[in-house]
Amino acid sequence: MSDLPVSPLAPGAFPDLPAIAGVRVATRACGVKYKGRTDVLLAAFAPETQAAGVFTKSLTASAPVDWCRKCLTGGVANGLIVNSGNANAFTGRLGEEAVEQVVEAVADRLACRPSRVFAASTGVIGEALNFRAITDELAAMAGDLAAGGWHAAAQAIMTTDTFPKGAAAEAAVNGRTVKIAGIAKGSGMIAPDMATMLAYVFTDAAIPAAVLQDLLADACDRSFNAITVDSDTSTSDTLMLFATGAAGNEQGFSGPDDPALADFRAKLEAVTLDLAQQVVRDGEGASKFIEITVTGAATDAAAKTIALSIANSPLVKTAIAGEDANWGRVVMAVGKAGERADRDRLNITMGGVTIAKNGLAVDGYDEAPVAAHMRGQEIDIAVDVGVGNGRATVWTCDLTHGYISINADYRS
Amino acid sequence: MSDLPVSPLAPGAFPDLPAIAGVRVATRACGVKYKGRTDVLLAAFAPETQAAGVFTKSLTASAPVDWCRKCLTGGVANGLIVNSGNANAFTGRLGEEAVEQVVEAVADRLACRPSRVFAASTGVIGEALNFRAITDELAAMAGDLAAGGWHAAAQAIMTTDTFPKGAAAEAAVNGRTVKIAGIAKGSGMIAPDMATMLAYVFTDAAIPAAVLQDLLADACDRSFNAITVDSDTSTSDTLMLFATGAAGNEQGFSGPDDPALADFRAKLEAVTLDLAQQVVRDGEGASKFIEITVTGAATDAAAKTIALSIANSPLVKTAIAGEDANWGRVVMAVGKAGERADRDRLNITMGGVTIAKNGLAVDGYDEAPVAAHMRGQEIDIAVDVGVGNGRATVWTCDLTHGYISINADYRS
Repeated sequence: MSDLPVSPLAPGAFPDLPAIAGVRVATRACGVKYKGRTDVLLAAFAPETQAAGVFTKSLTASAPVDWCRKCLTGGVANGLIVNSGNANAFTGRLGEEAVEQVVEAVADRLACRPSRVFAASTGVIGEALNFRAITDELAAMAGDLAAGGWHAAAQAIMTTDTFPKGAAAEAAVNGRTVKIAGIAKGSGMIAPDMATMLAYVFTDAAIPAAVLQDLLADACDRSFNAITVDSDTSTSDTLMLFATGAAGNEQGFSGPDDPALADFRAKLEAVTLDLAQQVVRDGEGASKFIEITVTGAATDAAAKTIALSIANSPLVKTAIAGEDANWGRVVMAVGKAGERADRDRLNITMGGVTIAKNGLAVDGYDEAPVAAHMRGQEIDIAVDVGVGNGRATVWTCDLTHGYISINADYRS
Repeated sequence: MSDLPVSPLAPGAFPDLPAIAGVRVATRACGVKYKGRTDVLLAAFAPETQAAGVFTKSLTASAPVDWCRKCLTGGVANGLIVNSGNANAFTGRLGEEAVEQVVEAVADRLACRPSRVFAASTGVIGEALNFRAITDELAAMAGDLAAGGWHAAAQAIMTTDTFPKGAAAEAAVNGRTVKIAGIAKGSGMIAPDMATMLAYVFTDAAIPAAVLQDLLADACDRSFNAITVDSDTSTSDTLMLFATGAAGNEQGFSGPDDPALADFRAKLEAVTLDLAQQVVRDGEGASKFIEITVTGAATDAAAKTIALSIANSPLVKTAIAGEDANWGRVVMAVGKAGERADRDRLNITMGGVTIAKNGLAVDGYDEAPVAAHMRGQEIDIAVDVGVGNGRATVWTCDLTHGYISINADYRS
């Protein structure tokens, strides 16, 4: 929905997402800020739809994030309202009132309690949200509610995204097939005034909220919490999972590790990872998609810290933009991560080719295959730090003139 | 010494630095890597010169850093040898041997123990240091040793720096005037293969090593540890202070807080701060020098964490490059710092003009004076986070197309 050209790393087309029994959506051009495009998404859920959520760790979180955190204690969702164009962040008491006005109006239309309506706003921060632009259209939107419509839903929540993001999967739960469909927005990780990350996943599985929350938190750790574009954290980042129960699978799970949930767990992670990687592929100015795997760390958490240190290093990211297999910058990023690493047992490979082994450049290292790998769009870096069994994989994109242009040359 | 144009933020000229009694220096074009320029600095100190040092926190520190840490336990320095062109980092056992060969050769020339010779290397990493290029020239260099010569010394240690960096001061210690002279190199903070930060400060004051170390660590915290260009940490960062004692001031200090050292302490901090700010002014691609002050934090340390979160945010730095007073990005950076802040008591000023107060954009905010400030080369941002009395000031530069060009377009 932005004027920017579609990212060169974008998938070919929006995927085919199934309708989810118990979920209806509607979108509309309410003119919150943008003209000539949809900017509000309304979703209505079956009565006992279970909800789970993971939110920004920012200490200056937006008013809608505060609202969702509070409502999530109830575990049940009947509605969801999302607007683009205005983030309703750093808006003080006015921001809280705007959220209340909007969710109360949605609750009236869906005949449910306001505390069962979740909300999100993404766009410019520090400006009062013109909530009447939304509430005035809710009657019409409620009339439009229908199953499916994911492509339109993904488009309505875009800000500087250059393509809408969706992913789907099926999973077997106690002999029933359940469906999972997800949409996301985000490009740049994350500017509060332009690129908040939002992701919503919907399923017809019957899974209680407490179990759902654990499943979502785990999936998030290995997907949305394993990607970075520029190390910045939005005031509004939100990932939510809604389970309508319409698939009618048997319940009584012992917890998130119940074997009956193994397939669902794997497929949920696949959907969140697909969405998260699409966010990276829409990273501001991105020309290359980078996968970084760290092994041999003291713990998995240490491995992730080291991997993110590499992924967030401006010097590593600019080297890759320049198609330079600059392993010295990788060493630097390992060193600054603050986690244990054995300099004399460090191994580094790029594109599967070993560049440095046991802390030294490989004798007779042939740069040609690595140089060819660096000219591609998909870059793999693997580092073994030689002290333990901890491992982690994270994803990022390169840092290019395009990023500077988007964030410096265009005045917001 | 690089082919890049001199930074627009550079001072007018190299300052007039005094000779320091007890210190002699020599420089030479040894051809370690660069051609047609000096690349080695040798310094010789009076017999009981006291030494202090602060080194990179990187866990993949270079061989010379390991060497200096070990030697510093002795507290006495008789010599210093620095080369540019090769960082002797990530060079394993070969790197350690190269350091030993060089310091032993220097020790022979200066008739002292090798453990009293400090070393540093800056330049490309992962390549074996051709130490014979240095040792072959030491006899000639020893013959050239002379007092003064700071401008030449600052030039010999440059890599991608666009101007040599020096600063000086005088201080009163127990009724005697002592001199302080310092040189530094660094541009970009910090690429291991191009822009390691090195700084050396020399004084004729008589101060024992243990006290000197505390004075230097404190000065470093408020200068070199309060600057950032790109959040990257070199494998070789080194700050050392040598005190020859030639000024003959009375000693017997109770510690670093002895009132007799108050003036020296202040002047030392002024010299290190001047040098540190010159490094920022030579930041890769820098077009603006930015001072960020955070007040009202829970502690001074929390204030510094928040200030560095703002200073390291690519979104803040690109906004400033675009001359955009984008306070929303400052809010975002405060939020992601992870330190306590009261969203509803946050105040933000730029160029002395209040933009947001008590968590809200100021009513009737006039952008004109702030926009004028943003068009200048010296940008001031002040944030009060409203929870306590902690405060800190840090310095950085903007993130421009020039940074991307230097680090991506030019292959190393």
